[in-house]
Amino acid sequence: MYAIVGDPIDQAGSPGLFNQAFRRIGAQAVLVPMHVDPADLPTLISTFRATRNWDGLVVTVPHKLAAVDLIDEVGPSGQRTGAVNAIRKDGGRLIGDNFDGIGFVEGLHAKGHNLRCRSVLLIGAGGAGRAVAYALADAAVGRIAIYDVDSTRAATLATAVTASTGISASASSHPEVRAHDLIINCAPTGGKLEIDLTPASPETLVVDIVLKPAITPLLAAAQSRGLKVHEGIHMLSGQVAALLVFFSLT
Amino acid sequence: MYAIVGDPIDQAGSPGLFNQAFRRIGAQAVLVPMHVDPADLPTLISTFRATRNWDGLVVTVPHKLAAVDLIDEVGPSGQRTGAVNAIRKDGGRLIGDNFDGIGFVEGLHAKGHNLRCRSVLLIGAGGAGRAVAYALADAAVGRIAIYDVDSTRAATLATAVTASTGISASASSHPEVRAHDLIINCAPTGGKLEIDLTPASPETLVVDIVLKPAITPLLAAAQSRGLKVHEGIHMLSGQVAALLVFFSLT
Repeated sequence: MYAIVGDPIDQAGSPGLFNQAFRRIGAQAVLVPMHVDPADLPTLISTFRATRNWDGLVVTVPHKLAAVDLIDEVGPSGQRTGAVNAIRKDGGRLIGDNFDGIGFVEGLHAKGHNLRCRSVLLIGAGGAGRAVAYALADAAVGRIAIYDVDSTRAATLATAVTASTGISASASSHPEVRAHDLIINCAPTGGKLEIDLTPASPETLVVDIVLKPAITPLLAAAQSRGLKVHEGIHMLSGQVAALLVFFSLT
Repeated sequence: MYAIVGDPIDQAGSPGLFNQAFRRIGAQAVLVPMHVDPADLPTLISTFRATRNWDGLVVTVPHKLAAVDLIDEVGPSGQRTGAVNAIRKDGGRLIGDNFDGIGFVEGLHAKGHNLRCRSVLLIGAGGAGRAVAYALADAAVGRIAIYDVDSTRAATLATAVTASTGISASASSHPEVRAHDLIINCAPTGGKLEIDLTPASPETLVVDIVLKPAITPLLAAAQSRGLKVHEGIHMLSGQVAALLVFFSLT
């Protein structure tokens, strides 16, 4: 048994992707969605520990940061982002790590989008934004401008990314789209943000990690301007292979 | 989401039966097995309460009695047997009841076995045995002889069944098979019991509620003597329809 925990959970794409993958690889496994409030996450993790045939947990919004404090060991991507999106068991221990970043980059590569030396506007410096920022740096983008409604959070992330990766990252006081090759929304409310795409270059790729609707208001606005778009589901599908390895299923 | 909790859980037939039934009725639901030690049942029930899309829980050995004290309301079959094997949510409340008895009787009827006025030897006065004893009485058997390794438990059940149903029930100090129309094993270890079937009438129906193996040692011994047998899976399949109603799925 595997599960994904979130609040809400209706939007989750993981059950569909994982159950397809389990069938494809012949795994006798199922992944079920579980809708739990933040206050109940510790209880759910206790039950995950106690249930002998429950082998793995995928963690989504808003639990990715809180889950770090409820497990026994955090992998490198989880440590630098302060968030985990997957937890497995090793004997009696719970080990978590964060695959959103690698999934995001893999999803872009799978669709033929190159990141090397590109200029990126990243909207949102929360759990997902942090994971994406570090993964973009690992993929050797040219520079990252980070916008968040909480400007301190944006500045903190920019400083940390530059310090640990050497890639140029800076906080942006407005979601200024001009002169970026990619505009990436990682804010849960980003689809509702008033982002003016008028100044964007016609070659700009607009990306949203929000899963439902597949075409968010931001992506719809981009399409209406003839810009290329990249949907949220690709971040998930891009990490399924890595998670099957993490869960020792392949 | 639905689950079945037990310890062990490998033997459980419910996932197969329920997931087939969900597909048949077009329910967007799944039932997963969960293996939890007795000490962890309270934690599991807490998570069941907290998980908003987790709508129902099937309870199997050894948790059926302990579950009664962890829920908010117990239905009539649960009250008289002191055990529940299914729990649903009603608003914030957990409501449990016991469907093993009705499932057992339905399973026999579905295979064409009549119970009215029959003489029954019932082996095992635990949770399942209690449920079966009351259901046999409701189905108007003629008399019930109850054997248990714990003779006090057998006597207590016999007295209670007679008092509440008016059907003749008595404790038996040995598993004496002579002069019974049905021999029913409800003891978890019953398959290993040394029961001498030699004195049984050729018309005797031998029943075991143990699920795996389908042909238990008791049923194999019965077959080798040319007696009719009835397997444990029928008690489960006989209660699926009632449980779909209990879970508000049909």
